[in-house]
This record gives sequence, C-alpha cells and structure tokens, in this order.
Amino acid sequence: MTYINDNYLKLSAGYLFVEIGRRVKKFCEDNPSANVIRLGIGDVTEPLAPAVVQAMHVAVDEMAVRSSFRGYGPEQGYDFLREAIAQNDYHARGANVDAGEIFVSDGSKCDSANVLDIFGTDNTVAVLDPVYPVYVDTNVMAGHTGPADASGRYGGLVYLPVTAENDFVPELPKQRVDLIYLCYPNNPTGMVATKETLKRWVDYAHENGSIILYDAAYEAYITDPSIPHSIFEIDGARDVALEFRSFSKTAGFTGVRCAFTVIPKSLKGKTREGREASIHSLWNRRHSTKFNGVCYPVQRGAEAIYSPEGKRQVRETIAFYLTNAKLIRDALTKLGIQAYGGINAPYVWLKTPGGLSSWDFFDKLLREAHLVGTPGSGFGTCGEGYFRLSAFNSRANVEEAAHRFAKVM
Amino acid sequence: MTYINDNYLKLSAGYLFVEIGRRVKKFCEDNPSANVIRLGIGDVTEPLAPAVVQAMHVAVDEMAVRSSFRGYGPEQGYDFLREAIAQNDYHARGANVDAGEIFVSDGSKCDSANVLDIFGTDNTVAVLDPVYPVYVDTNVMAGHTGPADASGRYGGLVYLPVTAENDFVPELPKQRVDLIYLCYPNNPTGMVATKETLKRWVDYAHENGSIILYDAAYEAYITDPSIPHSIFEIDGARDVALEFRSFSKTAGFTGVRCAFTVIPKSLKGKTREGREASIHSLWNRRHSTKFNGVCYPVQRGAEAIYSPEGKRQVRETIAFYLTNAKLIRDALTKLGIQAYGGINAPYVWLKTPGGLSSWDFFDKLLREAHLVGTPGSGFGTCGEGYFRLSAFNSRANVEEAAHRFAKVM
Repeated sequence: MTYINDNYLKLSAGYLFVEIGRRVKKFCEDNPSANVIRLGIGDVTEPLAPAVVQAMHVAVDEMAVRSSFRGYGPEQGYDFLREAIAQNDYHARGANVDAGEIFVSDGSKCDSANVLDIFGTDNTVAVLDPVYPVYVDTNVMAGHTGPADASGRYGGLVYLPVTAENDFVPELPKQRVDLIYLCYPNNPTGMVATKETLKRWVDYAHENGSIILYDAAYEAYITDPSIPHSIFEIDGARDVALEFRSFSKTAGFTGVRCAFTVIPKSLKGKTREGREASIHSLWNRRHSTKFNGVCYPVQRGAEAIYSPEGKRQVRETIAFYLTNAKLIRDALTKLGIQAYGGINAPYVWLKTPGGLSSWDFFDKLLREAHLVGTPGSGFGTCGEGYFRLSAFNSRANVEEAAHRFAKVM
Repeated sequence: MTYINDNYLKLSAGYLFVEIGRRVKKFCEDNPSANVIRLGIGDVTEPLAPAVVQAMHVAVDEMAVRSSFRGYGPEQGYDFLREAIAQNDYHARGANVDAGEIFVSDGSKCDSANVLDIFGTDNTVAVLDPVYPVYVDTNVMAGHTGPADASGRYGGLVYLPVTAENDFVPELPKQRVDLIYLCYPNNPTGMVATKETLKRWVDYAHENGSIILYDAAYEAYITDPSIPHSIFEIDGARDVALEFRSFSKTAGFTGVRCAFTVIPKSLKGKTREGREASIHSLWNRRHSTKFNGVCYPVQRGAEAIYSPEGKRQVRETIAFYLTNAKLIRDALTKLGIQAYGGINAPYVWLKTPGGLSSWDFFDKLLREAHLVGTPGSGFGTCGEGYFRLSAFNSRANVEEAAHRFAKVM
C-alpha cells in the first residue's frame, strides 16, 4: 500500500476555527432566538470597491471577445500589476523593489505555506507565540518538527514569547535560527514593529545567515506614519528577507483571491555543499512548475486598487474598519479591560478579565453576550489568558457588541 | 546561511517551452516579416462562453453590494459547484462520486503537483514516457528521484514507454509501484484509454496496493462513446484512484483558473507503522491549510458551464477545436506522415518524416513553413522522433498551416 506523509499525523486534530464553529453552532441550536454577533474569524464584511468592480467587469468582457481574450498568463503575474505594486507599495515608500521581484499569487496563506518547498529540511525555524497557526502547521506537515508536547508546542520549533510582560516585543532567539516568521501588523495581537525593532531582526539575520519570512498582510491598517509598511524599508533587508502581501484585508479580496510575495534577487541560501543559491530563482522555478497564475479579471481588479479612485475607496473602507476597532478598544478600556492592538491593525487583543482562561472567556461571552471572538490560546501557549476581537463587521454590530460588553462585564 | 532544497538542483535547466520560446523569438527577430503560426503550447484561443461571461458579471455585481458580498469561501469549493460537478460529470455517466469528494482548486497543474505533499517519500513512482513534464519535475523537487542521466531520465522513477511500437498502450510495470500517473486523453500523444486498459490498471493497483493519479484534463474532447471520461467509470477504481479535472481546456479557463480533484473517501494509504490512513482526510487537511479557495465569480462561471446553454456553448467550442485537429491530422496523413491522436483530443502526435530528430523537425518547420510545434523529445526519451501539434487556433491559421505543410513536405 502507498505510504502517506506521516508528518500529518502529528498535527493537533482540532483546528481552532473548527472548534469555534462547533461551539457557536451548538449555542445557536440551543438558543435559536439569540442574535449572535461574530467578531471571530478575520474575514472582511464590506463590498469590493467600485473601481475594482468596474475593472473586473471590463476584464470579463475582454475574455468574451476573441481579439482580447487571454489564456495562460505569466505565472509570476501580469506586468501591469507587478509594476503597479512596485511603484505604489515600494518605490513610493523609498523601498527598492523591482517589479521582477514580485510574484503574484492567489493568497498569502498559500505563499507562506508553499515557500517551505524551496528550503531544506535541516533549518531551525523560529515563530512568535502567539502565532498565525499556518506557519506552524505547514512546518509540521513538511517534517520540520517533532510531535507536539502537552502544551501543544512542537519539538524542534523555536517559540519566541510575545506577551504584555515584554510589551509584545519578542527577544531575539538565544540560539541561531535559519528561518524566522515575523508578521506585522501582527495577527493575532494587532501590535506593530518599529523601524528599530525590525532593524534588530535584520541585523540578527545578517549575523546569523538567517532568512526572515515577513508577513505584511495587514500593512494597509498602519496609521502611525513612523511605522514601516514593508521590511524592505529597513537597510540591509534585501539580503535577508522576503515579504508576503495580500489584497485580502487591504481591499476585501478574501473571496476574490490575490496576493503577492516579494523575493529580492539578492536573497541567497546555501546548498548542502555550501554553495550560494538564489532564493528568487528557486521560487521562480517552484511558482512556474506548481502554479499557473492568477485569474486575469482578478489581476485587473487588483490593479484598480492603485488608481486614484481605487486608492481613495480602499482607504475609506480601511478607515471604517479602524473606527470599528477603536470603538471596540475604547469600550473595553472603559470597562477596565486591558486592550492592545486595534490602532494600526483590525484586531484588538485583550487580557481576559478576572484571570479567566481564553476558552472560559469565550464561553462566557457567547453565553451571556451572544458575542463570538477567538480564544488567544488557539494561537499558542502564550496566547492563554488573551482573546482576539476582529473589527470586520458592520458599525451597528460593533456598537451593539460594545453595548453588550458593558452589560456583562 | 539557510539551507535550500537541494533537490531543485537536479532539475534540467532548460524547460521545454522556454527553449521553444527562445528559438521562436530569435527566428522572428531575424525574419520580422514572417507570419509565424503557433501550434505549440496547449493554450486555448477562443473566448469564454456567453453563459460563463454572464455568470461572472452577476457574481462580480454580488461582490459590489454588502448584502450579497462573499468573503472567504469554503476551501473545498462552494456546494453549488461541487454538486453541479458530481451530478453532471459523474452521476450522469454512472460514476459514483459524492460532492463531498470533490475539491475545487485553481488548476490541475497545481493539484497534480501539490498532491505529493500528502504522500511519503519512500514510494516508487511510475510515469509514462513521453509524459507531461510537471509530474516528473515535481517528484524531482520533492526528493523522490536521483539525478538525471544523460538521456534526461531521473534515477528512481519508473518510466513506461508509450510509442507506436506498443500502439501507445504502456505495459504494466514489471516491478511493484506505489504511485502511477496516467493521463487520458493523453498529453502529449492525444491517445485515449479503453475501459479494458483502465480496468487492467485498476486491477494492477488493487493487487499491488498502488494509487493511480488519473489526469482527465482533456476528457471533454472524447468523441468515441465507448471511451470512459473518468477512471471512476471503472469498477473498483474508488479504492485505488484519485482524479484531476480542469475547466481550462473544457471551457477555455486557462486564464480564469478553475479545476477540481476527486478523492474518494474509500481511498487509503498506509502509515509507516502500517495503519490505514484516509487520503481524502489528508488532502482535506492540506487543502484547507495551504489553500484558501477559488475566486467566487470564477466558481459561478464554472457552475454556468453546466447550465443547458453553457453545455451547448462549450460543446460548440470543443467541436471547433476538434475540427481543427481533424484538418491537421488529415493534412499530415495526405502527405504520408504518420499521425496519431487528434480524434478524442486536441493534440496530434506525429512521427517526424525522414527520421528527423524532434528538434531538427522543429527547426525545419519553423524555418521553412514558419510553423511552431512542440518537439516530442521534450516530453521524454520515448518522445524522440515525434512531434506535437495543438488544435488550439483559429480556423484560418489551421488551414494556412495545413497548406504550408503541403508546401514543405
């Protein structure tokens, strides 16, 4: 019989959002009249920007006519989109990124998972704790870890605690690590990294020959002008980092699917024999062999985000979500609950009141306020005692949620 | 410094279609007035069906309004599409496939590459020769092979010759193999497999505990009613096979991106310890961790292919391409060139006249007739002396190509 990849057996059975779904479903069945408000999964709620909608319609019409029909596009993405990204997301912020270093894809989750294909199996991998579960699970699947211990931590991974105790700024690893996942603005904590913090990471990577896998999926939510949007705003980052970006949260593309990864041509790894190898070339080979490009109308939709009206429309929606975040954060603070994030990110990260565990707080909130959030412990051991609330919702729901918090706390 | 995946270094540097592109570009630069007709890469040329266009417009409009906006969809695909596939592609042909066994994706290339994630590294893998290069390259990348020999064959893979000498019906492997890639209608030869041939493979897989990776991306081109469209039309296949399907060639979706993979719940592999494991569960975990679903308007476009008008429109376009294939095949046959395929497939596979090598014939055809095809040797050692012509083109170009063949042969 054909062998399976046994590493999959190490994965914890219950995926966080599946367990949340199960508990919410049961509650709704038991309480059919309850008006449950979901501030759990980080999915957008507002419609696509009109500029995006229009561009997608035009592109669909092009596909309806032989003379303008397009079949296979370049696996790396169309130049019109790669150029718009390079210009607006990088050059405009003083970051030196060439269009040829941008790989358009169907999602940052996919890219951050698939990127492990091009790296060896003997690297030491560091993640923050709490952390976006995909980084961890894909390393487990790739056989980079041992089994999970009682706390859910996998052997072989280096976990860097991020809690109120260290102001959510992780210490540099005490041991040498090869691959480091960083996500700023952070999911789940909603915290950001200053230029100084990122510079420390870039310096660490230079000193240790490490590569930083930088996830900037939430960069559009940064309101503080001193906070970098890209790791490539940091001197020296081009030699030690690659970056994941997404249109999912920037422009409501969670159901449309478009993202990109930046891999500088100067980024190098090494072979077992110690020769240098271009990470850009490896990813290009991976991307063109195992992927076939993003839907043409979707790429036109993404391009429209960079038009003057597109920019304005997208900014308005982000401002709307950020106001939601502020309302949630203010409501919590007023109740004496310690809240973090929510200023440069669509997530508010709160310390559960009364020392409740994350899941106990989840159950209390669901039972007493008919509100759904995400238990911090689902993101890692150091998330225990914390709770994530998402700002992706209607204003009415957010105001109602704030009202209910006041009632039950 | 971070280790790379050294297996990538084993890959032959020159990818077939890159080399073709290079030679064509040089020829066009040297001969700027030449009207080069491309019958090389297998990409569609005709526009999307009106039913698809309309459905995509409607879905884009839904995304423009808050009440009908959709964010993250199910990673496995929307039920409306999975149900339409199960009903029309399987139940209607007497094949027992449940909607829950269908995983919608952004491409068969991606699926046939990514599927290796869930299998172990100690399996013996068999491919036909000639073969779609992605099957081979992704096994190389995953470390399932040794280096390539002088002929381009990779150590550790089992190659099953498919040539005129065996009527393009491969012999069963002489040794036990765990994974077998089969593609029917075949790319590149354009040949099909009868029920009897597939039954032999299913029986082999039962006897040897093997899994068949069945690629049916071109099934819509089958004109002979006795030829199965799916391996699941064969008794017993549900225990030993999974199947890749695509809308790329069926409905001109190469630039739109939608495909699906069928994994029966009865398909099992084994762990190192010898316990049975569900391939469906493993792929479900892989798909939901490393993928985030297909664009909603694209899934609505795919659904529209199954409407009465969609079916009719798609059938018309396929009939158009098949007439192209017939024109090419007839023109070759009339000139005494031995041609295969092109009846149940959009590809014609010809034996090069005068014993020319595949690349010599490529150069001759380009130089003397300004026609581009694909050298058979690019698909494997046993493709040497063969040549692939694609029927994806306008009628005028195909007629002109037939005319030029007559002139130079």
